[in-house]
Amino acid sequence: MPTSPITPPGGTEADVSLSEVGEFGLITRVTSGRRQPPTTLLGPGDDAAVVAAGDGRVVATTDVLVQGVHFRLDWSSPEQIGRKAAAVNLSDVVAMGAVPTALLVGLACPASTPAAVAAGIADGLWAEADVAGAGVVGGDLSSASTMVVAVTALGSLEGREPVTRGGARPGDVVAVAGRLGWAAAGLAVLGRGFRSPAVLVDAQRTPQPPYAAGPAAARAGATSMIDVSDGLLADLGHVASASGVRIELDRAAFAVPYRLGEIASALGADPLDWILTGGEDHALAATFAPDTALPEGFTPVGQVSDGDPAVLVDGAAHEGEPGWRHFPPA
Amino acid sequence: MPTSPITPPGGTEADVSLSEVGEFGLITRVTSGRRQPPTTLLGPGDDAAVVAAGDGRVVATTDVLVQGVHFRLDWSSPEQIGRKAAAVNLSDVVAMGAVPTALLVGLACPASTPAAVAAGIADGLWAEADVAGAGVVGGDLSSASTMVVAVTALGSLEGREPVTRGGARPGDVVAVAGRLGWAAAGLAVLGRGFRSPAVLVDAQRTPQPPYAAGPAAARAGATSMIDVSDGLLADLGHVASASGVRIELDRAAFAVPYRLGEIASALGADPLDWILTGGEDHALAATFAPDTALPEGFTPVGQVSDGDPAVLVDGAAHEGEPGWRHFPPA
Repeated sequence: MPTSPITPPGGTEADVSLSEVGEFGLITRVTSGRRQPPTTLLGPGDDAAVVAAGDGRVVATTDVLVQGVHFRLDWSSPEQIGRKAAAVNLSDVVAMGAVPTALLVGLACPASTPAAVAAGIADGLWAEADVAGAGVVGGDLSSASTMVVAVTALGSLEGREPVTRGGARPGDVVAVAGRLGWAAAGLAVLGRGFRSPAVLVDAQRTPQPPYAAGPAAARAGATSMIDVSDGLLADLGHVASASGVRIELDRAAFAVPYRLGEIASALGADPLDWILTGGEDHALAATFAPDTALPEGFTPVGQVSDGDPAVLVDGAAHEGEPGWRHFPPA
Repeated sequence: MPTSPITPPGGTEADVSLSEVGEFGLITRVTSGRRQPPTTLLGPGDDAAVVAAGDGRVVATTDVLVQGVHFRLDWSSPEQIGRKAAAVNLSDVVAMGAVPTALLVGLACPASTPAAVAAGIADGLWAEADVAGAGVVGGDLSSASTMVVAVTALGSLEGREPVTRGGARPGDVVAVAGRLGWAAAGLAVLGRGFRSPAVLVDAQRTPQPPYAAGPAAARAGATSMIDVSDGLLADLGHVASASGVRIELDRAAFAVPYRLGEIASALGADPLDWILTGGEDHALAATFAPDTALPEGFTPVGQVSDGDPAVLVDGAAHEGEPGWRHFPPA
């Protein structure tokens, strides 16, 4: 099929909608001139892509981002939305101890969407994939009444066993890598109509998962690991359940970053509440045998003990919601 | 995290919405008691799944289905929607000559959606994956104002080279496997408010891709292959462009199935128009060197020749749209 350039004669990208440029025009715009990593054996443009899976296994995960639920076009740029859609998936791959190799993206949006918005989302996906060493190998585009970005990420275990949620053992150290509470603080700021501090607002718009820390934890022998997407307590709750253990966190082990403390004070919030229950930072929480030298980036925050599965903070249950729920009870 | 049963005391599945059952309740309902194929090394329930990729490569593709665009809840059952979402992706995998191994699904839908609808979609995905030999290894659930089903399919090439769109050579035979025009006829019937003939209406609701024909074509040495999703002429147009060849179809080579001819006559339509331009049947079109014994299920319908990339029918361009476009020119 003939493809059309995304920019019509005399116009700019911002002027044209998807219905004007057409799906093939957009696909050409977002795929041409991209650099693929060596793991991309066959990139976009055919019925399916082919990606290297060196050790005969592939790690795969999918996460959907919905306009008005996970992002707002008046809060985030298209590039930031693309970066976030990539990051939340890439983070799940590294949480298994794997190295990300590829992303596939399904984009549904109104036909009136400016082509520049769709192209910006694609640019953000490519940029974040590049940070993690992955390629964007496939996609699909559809019209819809609301914008939905569905991403699948693939990864390679490089011969290691996957680090699941089910391997934590009594006596293990609980450690975290990456930011906690920053996105929640940014959301609180945005929700009150502010646009600063930029570092917190940006944290909400685009997480910065500690990609290298996942495979590093696996190499160090992590017994369990999880991506902190819904909130540390909620996600460690999954580890406690899957491993059949109790997880005890030490409140004093959490340092409150200066900016977080400052804005919590200004908004009358408890910064530790953001740290313990805030989602969307995509930190990693892992457990290690007690004699393990923690890999770079990990900070110990508690220990694993015997007992009914639960997550305690200084020996007691945390008050309030442990994290985000998509379909809260009516 | 505790999970709740999908059916509350005294109620039935049909009575409860996603907001009542909660995401963890639904996930438990749609994942428990399922049988996974041997390629599923680690199934749903962790940050990511692990799938076998025996020859060190994985085929991956993604397709998004949107309510009101690809399906209607008043035309299709939830199971049929799930089957279709799986089929359109599995078909892309076999069109590379690969054997499907796994599906991942992102489901976005209103919180008021009956839990039984979401569970039905999941049942359909599992059923269709099973037909193709694949497992459902991961998923994500989100609230959204409209329903979007985003599926990614993975597959194994079993040591073969992928069959792309770019390998057709002058002199090759063009052959098709699977149904053509049935979904278009079904759509025409549904669009006029009818519900029969059931065989055509069902074809629109749930395609029946010839899964075995894809790997069979690859084993027979197919030089190019494509999944017919938008219409035979439109999709062979991609083969012509990618291969730099002309494709010439013989009108007389297409048999019109009795039911198709009958309903075309009743509606005043040309059944060959449905066969040549109708999408959504997910037949396979492939090219083979002229001396190839066509694998089971394939029928020759034309030949490849030298010339500017184009698809001709009895030597002339077909009148009208070659197939479906998501963002047609305004």
